[in-house]
Amino acid sequence: MVLTEIIGILAGIFTTIAAVPQIVKAWRNKACKDVSPFMFVILILGVSLWTVYGIMNQDWPIIITNGISTILNCTMLVLIIKYGKQNTTSNR
Amino acid sequence: MVLTEIIGILAGIFTTIAAVPQIVKAWRNKACKDVSPFMFVILILGVSLWTVYGIMNQDWPIIITNGISTILNCTMLVLIIKYGKQNTTSNR
Repeated sequence: MVLTEIIGILAGIFTTIAAVPQIVKAWRNKACKDVSPFMFVILILGVSLWTVYGIMNQDWPIIITNGISTILNCTMLVLIIKYGKQNTTSNR
Repeated sequence: MVLTEIIGILAGIFTTIAAVPQIVKAWRNKACKDVSPFMFVILILGVSLWTVYGIMNQDWPIIITNGISTILNCTMLVLIIKYGKQNTTSNR
């Protein structure tokens, strides 16, 4: 495997799993008031469109990484809706 | 321009600018205690490796979108370091 491929795979893994620590933190603390729901709405739009792009081009790495990202970011948005209003100073 | 290209461009714009509302929210409220620093560390690792991948392949759309993402996510990490400790219940 060439170096560019290894870098691409590592980059894909990191950007795919990035939401996991945020989900764990929100789940444990039952608090999301400082987390922007708009960030996750825009991310979901982006990664779901990347998934569609992957399906149209039959590009499996794009479908799998962005499909997982869509699920993770949707999970985080649900947690924001559930816990975001608690102890809120601003809901922007 | 074909439909797949339009979808790819929209997907790229959304995933690139997603951090902006989070930066604005953190900046306005001067609070990040619910935001996971690990999410942004992993994101920075991912998008900076995508930038390197783009440079190695001389792929300008990948360089530009991920270069902007790297700057935005680094900005957010600075805000977390600056404001994340205030009124902290957990710093995970």
